[in-house]
Amino acid sequence: MIVNHPSRPRVVVAPDSFKGSLGAVEVCAAVGEGVRRAFPDAEVVAVPMADGGEGTLDCFLSALGGKEMALAAVDPLGRPVQARYALSGDGRSAVVELASASGLPLVADAGPDPLGAGTEGTGMLIADAVAHGARDVLVCLGGSASTDGGAGLLRALGVRFTDAAGEDLPPGGGALARLAAIDDSGLRPEVRATRFRVACDVTNPLVGPRGAAAVFGPQKGAGPEQVRALDAALERFAGVLAEHTGVRVRDLPGAGAAGGACGGLVAMLGAEPASGAELVADTVGLPAALDGADLVITGEGRVDGQSAGGKVVSVVAALARERGVPAVALAGSLVAPLDDLHDLGLTAAFSLADGPRTLEELTGSAGPLLAGLAEQVARLRLA
Amino acid sequence: MIVNHPSRPRVVVAPDSFKGSLGAVEVCAAVGEGVRRAFPDAEVVAVPMADGGEGTLDCFLSALGGKEMALAAVDPLGRPVQARYALSGDGRSAVVELASASGLPLVADAGPDPLGAGTEGTGMLIADAVAHGARDVLVCLGGSASTDGGAGLLRALGVRFTDAAGEDLPPGGGALARLAAIDDSGLRPEVRATRFRVACDVTNPLVGPRGAAAVFGPQKGAGPEQVRALDAALERFAGVLAEHTGVRVRDLPGAGAAGGACGGLVAMLGAEPASGAELVADTVGLPAALDGADLVITGEGRVDGQSAGGKVVSVVAALARERGVPAVALAGSLVAPLDDLHDLGLTAAFSLADGPRTLEELTGSAGPLLAGLAEQVARLRLA
Repeated sequence: MIVNHPSRPRVVVAPDSFKGSLGAVEVCAAVGEGVRRAFPDAEVVAVPMADGGEGTLDCFLSALGGKEMALAAVDPLGRPVQARYALSGDGRSAVVELASASGLPLVADAGPDPLGAGTEGTGMLIADAVAHGARDVLVCLGGSASTDGGAGLLRALGVRFTDAAGEDLPPGGGALARLAAIDDSGLRPEVRATRFRVACDVTNPLVGPRGAAAVFGPQKGAGPEQVRALDAALERFAGVLAEHTGVRVRDLPGAGAAGGACGGLVAMLGAEPASGAELVADTVGLPAALDGADLVITGEGRVDGQSAGGKVVSVVAALARERGVPAVALAGSLVAPLDDLHDLGLTAAFSLADGPRTLEELTGSAGPLLAGLAEQVARLRLA
Repeated sequence: MIVNHPSRPRVVVAPDSFKGSLGAVEVCAAVGEGVRRAFPDAEVVAVPMADGGEGTLDCFLSALGGKEMALAAVDPLGRPVQARYALSGDGRSAVVELASASGLPLVADAGPDPLGAGTEGTGMLIADAVAHGARDVLVCLGGSASTDGGAGLLRALGVRFTDAAGEDLPPGGGALARLAAIDDSGLRPEVRATRFRVACDVTNPLVGPRGAAAVFGPQKGAGPEQVRALDAALERFAGVLAEHTGVRVRDLPGAGAAGGACGGLVAMLGAEPASGAELVADTVGLPAALDGADLVITGEGRVDGQSAGGKVVSVVAALARERGVPAVALAGSLVAPLDDLHDLGLTAAFSLADGPRTLEELTGSAGPLLAGLAEQVARLRLA
């Protein structure tokens, strides 16, 4: 075999975070150290990634050099909460994580309120971002406490949801059962002029046995009766949305994400749903970083060959293959078979485990273990 | 990077056994399966290896297609024991493991007898091999129950060890304290015409604080007083050997291997001591197998970067480097830093662990895990 490697290999490091262990930025640092141990002159390009879930905000802040905006918002139960979002350096784009103001952990103290919990807080963050000039807003779904179809979020942006008597509905998904009309005359022009993209990694429709209430309601505290009530409320919500906007999201794949918030955003704001990891890759400029690279190293706490689609690893692998760049995934746990990932473009995958170890030992030593593994990977491919 | 790999890569698999888990032949099978999963047309050359210790006999039988010879011999205490050695297909060479007839585990039922234990049984195996026509005998040391300087072994080949009264000494190292003369007139001509090589991986001299008795005596059951007695006996043995043969093995590095058997063999039979793994590599034809290979995969249960010398992994790596072949080690446990191994020529090393696992889980799944890892390694290097 003849290997012509450049004297100064260019290695892109584009991992997800290792949940419970290292953030994506720390993973980049460890992997970069290992690569440089093998090739001191290597050009290491760190592109910390995320899949639209936890860690996405930090990933953007790191990649885009934006600023973190803190805001007094409300939590899913309407109580004050300090939340945050990311604004790009030029102020033109923003990233809002729904979990920051509307996440399930925020109601852990009070207990779940599946019918009453809402997404107003996330709407407040979006309103603030738009007020700061953002016209391209990425909303990362996932981790919500609510099943309100995003009604609370939209209300915070000026949309009114009223009952047959013309009265505003109270917050929460349960009240949508009485929804009669939608009035978006209060939606500000700058919001209308904004491009919204939603990062959603589920394919569940809004309503029905695979819908937001049936599938995700129970993990938000909904019993069987509440699931039925929420499903019926979302059914009504979908109907009124369709009447009002002409957009039918009832059966749209992904519309059920984040308690149906995806459906509400698509119908009312023309939001474009997409894979979180793909949106992140696009936003942080991964495709350009991969051009001319000799190797890309990605990774995630758990790499499962059979639930590969839409994850950071598979998105990086697919982008790498398009450019002829070998892609290697490093993982805490590797779940074979990896055939599906190979089919997506992943060259190879390795676990950072160096022998018999407990989970605690692996998470506690993840940094040095990743550095050591990355050194071996770089040597094997580039030496 | 431009990689020109052949359409049909040639991959040599040359691992040691994974102690407590898989024999080297099984490791070859698992690794070969993984390589073929990545490259169905790959030419996989299995060269199971050993380091002169446990598993060496099976390695020779597998590599040379020889036959296993079973023989009624005696154990370290002189009791009957069924032992075995390997004879090559053409009958010209043989491999004898000292542990087969003279190993410490054989006396586990009776308890250790550090002063009385001997190596007669191993001499019986060698005599049988020579009687079958073998003129190139590899004696694998290690694991002995005795500290007799190989006197028992030599006695079985016709050498007499006598006291001042001209009486034959009884078996065991303790009796060598009374050694007065050596008579090798009974050594058969065919034994004299045989080339002996000894696989020994320690550098301890025969006598002194780093000698056979001081360092290895205690693990064979010798208390402080017995260690002193055995060291004095070996001192006398070395002196009489030097008088009789002119060969001084008292301070020869490695002479202390296997209770000093290495020293006795060198002095009396002109045996050539060498690294076990190197002798094995040479005998099974590894250097020739590596010519023109695209990759060699070696491995061992535990790969320790800092105690690398003389092991299968380091010998394979060094041979591979001489031929410009990348060498990868697969291990159950990997002990960083690996710099010393890299310096010896190892390209990279990986653990078969796929996440947090107990030792039992790893040993129980070693085959499938090795296959999966080998597939990834082949993909990363050859795709």
